[in-house]
Amino acid sequence: MVRIGYLGPEGTFSHEALLKYAGGNLCAYSIHGYASIPDILYGVHNGEIDEAIVPIENSIEGAVSVTLDIIAADVDLKIKGEEVMNIKQNLMAKKGTKIEDIKQILSHPQPIGQCRKYINSCFPNAEVKCVYSTAGAANEVAMLGGGLAAIGSAAAAEAYGLDILAHNIQDGDNNSTRFIVVSRDDRERTGHDKTSIVFSTEDRPGSLYRILDIFNLWDINMTRIESRPAKNQLGRYIFFVDVVGHRSDEDVKDALTMIKKKTSFFKFLGSYPYSPG
Amino acid sequence: MVRIGYLGPEGTFSHEALLKYAGGNLCAYSIHGYASIPDILYGVHNGEIDEAIVPIENSIEGAVSVTLDIIAADVDLKIKGEEVMNIKQNLMAKKGTKIEDIKQILSHPQPIGQCRKYINSCFPNAEVKCVYSTAGAANEVAMLGGGLAAIGSAAAAEAYGLDILAHNIQDGDNNSTRFIVVSRDDRERTGHDKTSIVFSTEDRPGSLYRILDIFNLWDINMTRIESRPAKNQLGRYIFFVDVVGHRSDEDVKDALTMIKKKTSFFKFLGSYPYSPG
Repeated sequence: MVRIGYLGPEGTFSHEALLKYAGGNLCAYSIHGYASIPDILYGVHNGEIDEAIVPIENSIEGAVSVTLDIIAADVDLKIKGEEVMNIKQNLMAKKGTKIEDIKQILSHPQPIGQCRKYINSCFPNAEVKCVYSTAGAANEVAMLGGGLAAIGSAAAAEAYGLDILAHNIQDGDNNSTRFIVVSRDDRERTGHDKTSIVFSTEDRPGSLYRILDIFNLWDINMTRIESRPAKNQLGRYIFFVDVVGHRSDEDVKDALTMIKKKTSFFKFLGSYPYSPG
Repeated sequence: MVRIGYLGPEGTFSHEALLKYAGGNLCAYSIHGYASIPDILYGVHNGEIDEAIVPIENSIEGAVSVTLDIIAADVDLKIKGEEVMNIKQNLMAKKGTKIEDIKQILSHPQPIGQCRKYINSCFPNAEVKCVYSTAGAANEVAMLGGGLAAIGSAAAAEAYGLDILAHNIQDGDNNSTRFIVVSRDDRERTGHDKTSIVFSTEDRPGSLYRILDIFNLWDINMTRIESRPAKNQLGRYIFFVDVVGHRSDEDVKDALTMIKKKTSFFKFLGSYPYSPG
């Protein structure tokens, strides 16, 4: 049995992503709900579990900074897979609650960011409370009721017996989240792979350009670049880059060797197959 | 009198940044505290106020996404100045409250992100509640007391009569926030200027590289690049870039003209003097 962790309880988007990832093979896994993303990632790092599925990026709200920061600096894990999930956020409350009764809205900070315009325009006076998961928010609303509402998946509404007061409340129709599966090892070549790295450039003009120039020289297609603060100084960044290809491909191997030489910090994060989406 | 908006009430880091920006010239300004960053930015856009000072980037927690998203897409404002503030976060509570009494911690989501490790290690069981400003958190703690604590500036503790239970609780010693001053116009050339733009690239391999290549050709120094999701599709990004120089400088003017031609979306965000830091 592969022990796999996710942001629990059941009914979270992470739980849905885990079910999609396991597919028909669910019986091969024992699944473990954790209370926070750091707990899950340290769980794999410390050997409590073998794998974990965590969100890394959302099409509206952007990077999940806690995931990026921990995999860049705090743990030594590899990405072995990804799942892209279409996300529909819903406003849910205890049966009988009316829209005009709602005084406080609970959710994870990511869905709150995804629904910022909706909250500001429909509930300018409501208090917004951040909790550790959408399902945790639904659970709290189910227990306390009153003027509370949660933002989360339809699965969470069903799991906690809540009514959906408003469907599809995210800002913009196209709301998807990319989850990564991390483990102590990445994946062998499948022929439709991508490779993730994180690096920081030297502190001189044109240094990021010189790195991207290496991909250009080797004709490697970069599919994503995400900057995060380097934390030691304002204006210094680390860059998360995804490229097409597997670490065992000749051109990827050569380009990474060169990039390692030309960066002040470099970490290989894994080669793994593309999500079918 | 210049009407300038900030994230109020008094005692927030935005208020401190405003005092630093106005300097000896404070009597030339009438200052207006707003409840949220969107309210401030729309306040300038709608002509309620002439200028606003808002946070854009923190050295630990990264971009202030709400500021970036609004100036990129929703309002037509120019950046006319910046201030970099060294930020020290403190845990504060009503007089007599002990560390072990604390059940709930209130703050703005940015300081909560800046103090993530501290909260997780010292208060793993505390509830974390997001409010609109650090001073608002201090105010709520001063009114309700009980097991509540706020995270914010020493100025907020003083303004609301709270005791500081722990000083400098941010993750890492180097915690600074860059604020921008926005208005309907940017600034004339001072000789020590930078220029901010935001653009999205065409959806084909190497398109970001080709833009950075333009800066390289014109020998323009890029000081910052920040990616944000384009919101219409996962994997599409917009890029916020700062370069050294003023829009009226010949080389900056030529490079921007070329970049405008080579991008699918381009917006000039302003030329303004560097913060003395």
